[in-house]
Amino acid sequence: MEVKAGELLEQINFPSDLKKFSDNDLEKVCQELRQYIIDVVSVNGGHFGASLGVVELSVALHYILNTPYDQLVWDVGHQAYGHKILTGRRSVFHTNRIYKGISGFPKRSESEYDTFGVGHSSTSISAALGMAVASQYKGEKDRQHVAVIGDGAMTAGMAFEALNHAGIENSNLLVILNDNCMSIDPNVGALKEYLTDITTSRQYNKFRDDISHVLGKLSELGPNAHTVVKKIEKSIKGTLLKKSNFFEALKFRYFGPIDGHDVKHLVKVLRDLREIPGPKLLHCVTVKGKGFALAEKDQTKWHAPGLFDKITGEIKKTVSEKPQPPKYQDVFGHTIVELAEANPKIMGITPAMPSGSSLNIMMKAMPKRAFDVGIAEQHAVTFSAGLATQGLVPFCNIYSSFMQRAYDQVIHDVALQKLNVVFCLDRGGFAGADGATHHGAYDLAYMRSIPNMIVSAPMNEEELRNLMYTAQLDNMGPFSIRYPRGQGVLTDWRRPLNAIPVGKGRKVCDGEDVAILTVGHIGNEAVKATLSLNEEGIYPAHYDLRFVKPLDEDLLHEVFRKFDKVITVEDGCLPGGFGSAVVEFMADKGYTAKVTRLGIPDSIIEHGEQAELWAECGFDANGIAASVRNMAVSRKTESLAS
Amino acid sequence: MEVKAGELLEQINFPSDLKKFSDNDLEKVCQELRQYIIDVVSVNGGHFGASLGVVELSVALHYILNTPYDQLVWDVGHQAYGHKILTGRRSVFHTNRIYKGISGFPKRSESEYDTFGVGHSSTSISAALGMAVASQYKGEKDRQHVAVIGDGAMTAGMAFEALNHAGIENSNLLVILNDNCMSIDPNVGALKEYLTDITTSRQYNKFRDDISHVLGKLSELGPNAHTVVKKIEKSIKGTLLKKSNFFEALKFRYFGPIDGHDVKHLVKVLRDLREIPGPKLLHCVTVKGKGFALAEKDQTKWHAPGLFDKITGEIKKTVSEKPQPPKYQDVFGHTIVELAEANPKIMGITPAMPSGSSLNIMMKAMPKRAFDVGIAEQHAVTFSAGLATQGLVPFCNIYSSFMQRAYDQVIHDVALQKLNVVFCLDRGGFAGADGATHHGAYDLAYMRSIPNMIVSAPMNEEELRNLMYTAQLDNMGPFSIRYPRGQGVLTDWRRPLNAIPVGKGRKVCDGEDVAILTVGHIGNEAVKATLSLNEEGIYPAHYDLRFVKPLDEDLLHEVFRKFDKVITVEDGCLPGGFGSAVVEFMADKGYTAKVTRLGIPDSIIEHGEQAELWAECGFDANGIAASVRNMAVSRKTESLAS
Repeated sequence: MEVKAGELLEQINFPSDLKKFSDNDLEKVCQELRQYIIDVVSVNGGHFGASLGVVELSVALHYILNTPYDQLVWDVGHQAYGHKILTGRRSVFHTNRIYKGISGFPKRSESEYDTFGVGHSSTSISAALGMAVASQYKGEKDRQHVAVIGDGAMTAGMAFEALNHAGIENSNLLVILNDNCMSIDPNVGALKEYLTDITTSRQYNKFRDDISHVLGKLSELGPNAHTVVKKIEKSIKGTLLKKSNFFEALKFRYFGPIDGHDVKHLVKVLRDLREIPGPKLLHCVTVKGKGFALAEKDQTKWHAPGLFDKITGEIKKTVSEKPQPPKYQDVFGHTIVELAEANPKIMGITPAMPSGSSLNIMMKAMPKRAFDVGIAEQHAVTFSAGLATQGLVPFCNIYSSFMQRAYDQVIHDVALQKLNVVFCLDRGGFAGADGATHHGAYDLAYMRSIPNMIVSAPMNEEELRNLMYTAQLDNMGPFSIRYPRGQGVLTDWRRPLNAIPVGKGRKVCDGEDVAILTVGHIGNEAVKATLSLNEEGIYPAHYDLRFVKPLDEDLLHEVFRKFDKVITVEDGCLPGGFGSAVVEFMADKGYTAKVTRLGIPDSIIEHGEQAELWAECGFDANGIAASVRNMAVSRKTESLAS
Repeated sequence: MEVKAGELLEQINFPSDLKKFSDNDLEKVCQELRQYIIDVVSVNGGHFGASLGVVELSVALHYILNTPYDQLVWDVGHQAYGHKILTGRRSVFHTNRIYKGISGFPKRSESEYDTFGVGHSSTSISAALGMAVASQYKGEKDRQHVAVIGDGAMTAGMAFEALNHAGIENSNLLVILNDNCMSIDPNVGALKEYLTDITTSRQYNKFRDDISHVLGKLSELGPNAHTVVKKIEKSIKGTLLKKSNFFEALKFRYFGPIDGHDVKHLVKVLRDLREIPGPKLLHCVTVKGKGFALAEKDQTKWHAPGLFDKITGEIKKTVSEKPQPPKYQDVFGHTIVELAEANPKIMGITPAMPSGSSLNIMMKAMPKRAFDVGIAEQHAVTFSAGLATQGLVPFCNIYSSFMQRAYDQVIHDVALQKLNVVFCLDRGGFAGADGATHHGAYDLAYMRSIPNMIVSAPMNEEELRNLMYTAQLDNMGPFSIRYPRGQGVLTDWRRPLNAIPVGKGRKVCDGEDVAILTVGHIGNEAVKATLSLNEEGIYPAHYDLRFVKPLDEDLLHEVFRKFDKVITVEDGCLPGGFGSAVVEFMADKGYTAKVTRLGIPDSIIEHGEQAELWAECGFDANGIAASVRNMAVSRKTESLAS
């Protein structure tokens, strides 16, 4: 669907076009840019609220900065739609997040204006500081370096690490704190409260109130006293309040807070800041979803609402005639409440993903037992470890690709001490439209290297429930359960809970010639493959291993004694993954079957629907069937030859 | 060597014994504890300065707290010798860090007083908060939870994440900031400067000076003015300065700074703090190495000095008649300077390990091109990525086990964008006396799962130099080079630099029957094994792969065509590691050789000399030889049978 840009925006293909307008035109540019984002996202989908919140910032930054020479890094990047539209990608913006289309995040290979690929949060200050230090080293004194980071992203440790370093480097770095009090869910933590404090000037006001009556008395003391009181106030505001600021403590010069939707003021401030050397922070207060009333009102819902009617605000839902299977995340959310009701030891932890993980169900039902700790994966894991030392059973829910941030904590704080922390890794395998930064490609590999770790993946909702049930039984040690984004396969998923013996797989169907070994949800593609192969007279066996570690050795012995052609299938990276574990087993036990390993190859896979990506990598039902056919045919050829 | 404790310390086996003494005895207890640490460490080795710096804190905490019911978490833990001596381990303290002896760090399996296993820095606040929240949940209101963390450890992101969360949990948590201005090397960063500021009260003093003349004038205005001025000062100090504090911004109540060597005052303050609910931070100023003059003077050198004469302070060095090979870290340190002199693009980055990595050589020679970014592995990697976007070639040196902290940044910020960051992973393989927390066991596995990543390990100093040389050639992409703690094998290591084709291994020696494939320094054990086997008439071939990724496929085809018995050897974890990569290759190419994989098994290996641990795991020269013999014998048996 073609979307027409407004009359000013239509003239803007690159920042150089934007610069032709006067300061007075910018409000209209912002209005048109905002409308354009609404028009396109309502019919194409994608992230929504974040980009609306930074329309003015996007326009002001490209208006004042000399991009791409000046370097602009967007933290996370789901707010960079305005930036993309202003930097040569308006005409392809309708392909946003679509297979083979442009990425939903800034990406170096897509545009020279995208200085740093993002997706995960809180990287921008580190990256921009690297650029600033490089410019300083090269003597490029005129070059500006700007990181735009949200108050949510500011809670992650690496943002603090970067501030701590940047504060002592005298490089030309501007951090823009985009303070909208939100992550995807409302932002949490002490820093957020502090930002609210200084935004509402409560601190300064409180102090002023406290001593105002004292100063009031002074005024009575003589005609010069009024001047003296003013001087004291000025001195307090000028030196102490500034020095006392959190960011000033980290040796940044702090400016603000200012209204991030006043584009003319933004332009003025950014123009001034350009002239100020060294590390500085501009605190901008914005509203996520700004300009679209419903999005302002329910910011979590409108973070990425899917398709919607831009007039009525009705979010379009696919209506199905038949009952649909639930999302895995909801199975997690309901099941943890069910388990926690029976087991008082269970606690729930999420790093800033209450709605994404569906832990919000537990947070609502049992607020004292479920914790959103902010964008803080490292802390989430070690906090869980601390809980576990006291005999509690924390379920720490982290997206597979974000769990990479807490790898050390998983090893050092949980596994080495064999603590009973249950890791629920959502978005395992291809994440879909979010693309390469968000694919949960590596977890099966990086988890199975860790001693004491149980590594499991359910093939359906019932297995997810049973694995969760199993993981909270008597002191099971570190236990990871990974499952994909999106729907499961069962409509009647609320089945009774049963323990699954750790390391026990199951035979899905018997067969001949070829055995398919799968782990996790992708096994359903093997089921489809098997059904279609049966119609051709090919009957592969199919085993659902459920555990990558410990492997079901009994089952594997059975497989390798019976089959000399085996296919492994995983929605995870091939180097070091599930298939790798199987060939290690073979090598250790002396089996010599022919093995085809299907999974995510050793390369970067971009965004697209999960099914598109499975097909691209050859492990959707068709791909699996083709591999079985190949093997079965080679068997037939062998038979003919013998 | 038996070390005698002083007359008071001799009576203390557990904190209950310590509590029998009066406040007035504590100085003597501290003196004796300090002397005991000096006496034992001087003859047994181990960490030194850190424990001396917290003698008073250790005594005061166990005197006031009801440990182990009250929970005390030592961050990092190399400062916990006093704690160990006071909690039942004085009699075994001489086995500290020795194979099968007690651990150099707190460890849950060693004592109930060790509430949380540590080694890596900055985990203590997260862990103690978990404990505090658990106590709150259980209704244990009297229970105290204390994290003792250094100012160096406070620079790591996860400490900030924990503060941000703890500030809004109303749990009973006391963070003791042990501020000695040091990591192993002097602490760096903005926070450190801030702490110095508030310690010297410069901020408050500056403000007081600024307005003192204004207030002075007021005093002249009448007899009541003096009282008014006092009120203003009190108001400023009481509300604003407190609120303005960095930690108060994070909703902690801040106390201090106080002298961490005044044990009586410490006891008084800790007694008071026990009564104050909620999150609170006590800022203690201490001196690393306190009480041993030389250690106070050169704190980096005396962090872990080895054996020394406790009277003269002479550090004992093993004197060798022959010239010794250098440490790998020094080869890195000298070579990066050599490379950087020729290539202006090269930069050096270390997260708080200038002396441990020997990057201090470059920091001294080229201060503008070498950066210590603080204990901040995540930032170190993404900062490097930022530099690389500008065409620079950062060498980011991080210990293998600490690199686990930056796994996401390696994937998300470097590998996905294929940036030319060179990762030098020191302490790859067994770390030795530091033990399980520090072993670099997982890097070969976790690195090889990452697309675009080159994974290499030199067998000797010359290969290290050549790999470093290769990695900075034209835009090689992400390139990791891992090498072990300790000495190499060449005395004449300063050889001319030569490029190694990426993915190219080499044949070390030809042979028959069995091929040994090694990667990295451990290959030298295979050389020894081969020499001893040759004397028995067994002649294995030996190949040094150098690259785990990409594998040298030509060489492997040659091996598997010629040999049907292969041994892989790596100083790394077996699941997913180098041997795993080899069996993946075999499976993919249809080879069916018998393979024995030697390496670190899937379990926790404790501390000990590297050679002791290699032997324990069966991949020292003897272990390798035994494996070859086994295989060769089975060949012989087969021959006899046929």
